[in-house]
Amino acid sequence: MGRLATVRPDGTPHVVPFVFALVRHGTAVRLYWTVDAKPKRSTSLRRVENLRANPAVEAVVDRYDDDWTGLWWVRMRGTGRVVASAEERRTALTALASKYPAYRSMRAEGDVVAIEVEAVSWWSAEEDRPSPPRPAR
Amino acid sequence: MGRLATVRPDGTPHVVPFVFALVRHGTAVRLYWTVDAKPKRSTSLRRVENLRANPAVEAVVDRYDDDWTGLWWVRMRGTGRVVASAEERRTALTALASKYPAYRSMRAEGDVVAIEVEAVSWWSAEEDRPSPPRPAR
Repeated sequence: MGRLATVRPDGTPHVVPFVFALVRHGTAVRLYWTVDAKPKRSTSLRRVENLRANPAVEAVVDRYDDDWTGLWWVRMRGTGRVVASAEERRTALTALASKYPAYRSMRAEGDVVAIEVEAVSWWSAEEDRPSPPRPAR
Repeated sequence: MGRLATVRPDGTPHVVPFVFALVRHGTAVRLYWTVDAKPKRSTSLRRVENLRANPAVEAVVDRYDDDWTGLWWVRMRGTGRVVASAEERRTALTALASKYPAYRSMRAEGDVVAIEVEAVSWWSAEEDRPSPPRPAR
């Protein structure tokens, strides 16, 4: 899981935790998430509204520990879009259910969003830590 | 700790993990963080550059667990500024060192940023979970 940032129409940032499935598509990396995984509140949909107005997103996946020598993060910049194709929607929901058992008993009725990852950056407190996977392009 | 989102000058979002100290100032809530807590890379300063151009920030503090009934998050919207006063800088660094032992043996030479929290929202999978502290205003 990670945290997903979008930009509101008024130009302010929005950030929330999110669960996602990473799918490789040729040399590209795509993240899928769906908005109604967990009990909904109106704010849950804010991200989708933000994306329609400004598709730029950034996600961060990180490890925190009180011992700061073990810290790392991976940031993924990309573009989000609501999945329109029924086939791609099935691909996304299958990938999510495969990663998160909780999805297997949950009906996914809300929007599915695909994020095309365009840039990856990472940092680690341990410089000799193996680098995380990066997109091939 | 949490994750802090800012907006880049090109209108895209930026999000990174951050450690902070929360200080109450009358009825207001303020977060302090400093950029050079951990080994620096040029990207560490991006947030400060972003803030100078667009002071809008959002921070999220959350709990993730494979059991989704235990999830919660608290989001804080606010405005960031680089601390200019030597006295406020000392206040911030003292609060950070009090919360994070790692700061006690580290020289803080970089910018300290204050975030004035203007709105707090929260969500919990357990509706009867006690609500987190909220600013009095």
